[in-house]
Amino acid sequence: MRLRKVPGALEKIKSSPYVIDEPLKFNGSYNELFKNNNPIRLEIGSGKGQFLIKMALKYPNINFIGLEKSSSVLVRAIEKVGTLKLSNLYFINEGASNIASLFYKEIDLIYLNFSDPWPKKRHAKRRLTNLSFLKKYDNVFKDKSIIFFKTDNQIFFENSLVCFNDYNYLIKEISLDLHNNNFVSIMTEYEERFVNMDKRIYWVVVQRL
Amino acid sequence: MRLRKVPGALEKIKSSPYVIDEPLKFNGSYNELFKNNNPIRLEIGSGKGQFLIKMALKYPNINFIGLEKSSSVLVRAIEKVGTLKLSNLYFINEGASNIASLFYKEIDLIYLNFSDPWPKKRHAKRRLTNLSFLKKYDNVFKDKSIIFFKTDNQIFFENSLVCFNDYNYLIKEISLDLHNNNFVSIMTEYEERFVNMDKRIYWVVVQRL
Repeated sequence: MRLRKVPGALEKIKSSPYVIDEPLKFNGSYNELFKNNNPIRLEIGSGKGQFLIKMALKYPNINFIGLEKSSSVLVRAIEKVGTLKLSNLYFINEGASNIASLFYKEIDLIYLNFSDPWPKKRHAKRRLTNLSFLKKYDNVFKDKSIIFFKTDNQIFFENSLVCFNDYNYLIKEISLDLHNNNFVSIMTEYEERFVNMDKRIYWVVVQRL
Repeated sequence: MRLRKVPGALEKIKSSPYVIDEPLKFNGSYNELFKNNNPIRLEIGSGKGQFLIKMALKYPNINFIGLEKSSSVLVRAIEKVGTLKLSNLYFINEGASNIASLFYKEIDLIYLNFSDPWPKKRHAKRRLTNLSFLKKYDNVFKDKSIIFFKTDNQIFFENSLVCFNDYNYLIKEISLDLHNNNFVSIMTEYEERFVNMDKRIYWVVVQRL
């Protein structure tokens, strides 16, 4: 997703109560931040925030954290959350590469929604379903390692299924045409656009052995 | 696939040199029938035979066996093979349920091409990718357990991926739109019809851990 640089984004992010300014200090103790022991779900690449904000509203007994490395994108999520009073939602202005230093054995579920497919073979390592990332997630998960993965990119989805299986993540649920399968699902901004274009959305839930 | 009853089918099958009349006696020793130690690949539900006949012509150093329980369908394969001289192809007029009594540790690969999807939940046990069948295949495979599965039925494909993973069959290759992926592939009669209708064909190669 290309987005023009938003002036003042960093300042807006810094001053938002929804953004964790010094995430490193919560590593291993996000339950103290949330002030409860509810499960914590993480979206990597939370973009403009629609998915996570709707999820947080719908599931008050689940905590949500969004990682978004682009400040120009994250600021849109901050604007969207606006004056809502949500105690179960935070964002972090960081990319996935640093995930192992941000969390330790405390995440119950990871969402990968329309992550960058990095179609070129030489960029395969940057895909969030690549082995190098799957290994990083190991230290992040609490008990079970569960990933919800959604994309409109067929080749990326195929590659990811092989990567998941290679690293002993097994398919628990799958849809090869999510919005024609009667699944009720909260959509990202990107997803809404593609569903309106009648494009297929691929979706899978995997859990590590 | 519905096919009208072909008069004299059983007689034609019985007299064909391509049909193994008493398969039970070859259990564990099909290499003696083929008179070599080449790998043996099995198609369960070989239908009118196009896939297996073309494969046998293309790969003379691989042996092929087709299981087809309907004599009215198998007779079409016998007619198709006609006057060809193929020493690496046989058919057996049997269904998959008896597979464990037919083969013992001698099959290198199983093809499931457009198997009956049995869409109703109460018929799930009849699907050839169901746990009960996967268990039967264990005794049939020689070293590695490898299945090539192709279907045009999305839901059947989704269910099968979950079944495969549940029984530790991992995805090695996958295509969610086989004939738009530049894969070169020998087609079944059924497949040709669907590709001409521009229907998606789903394809996966799985191997047991």
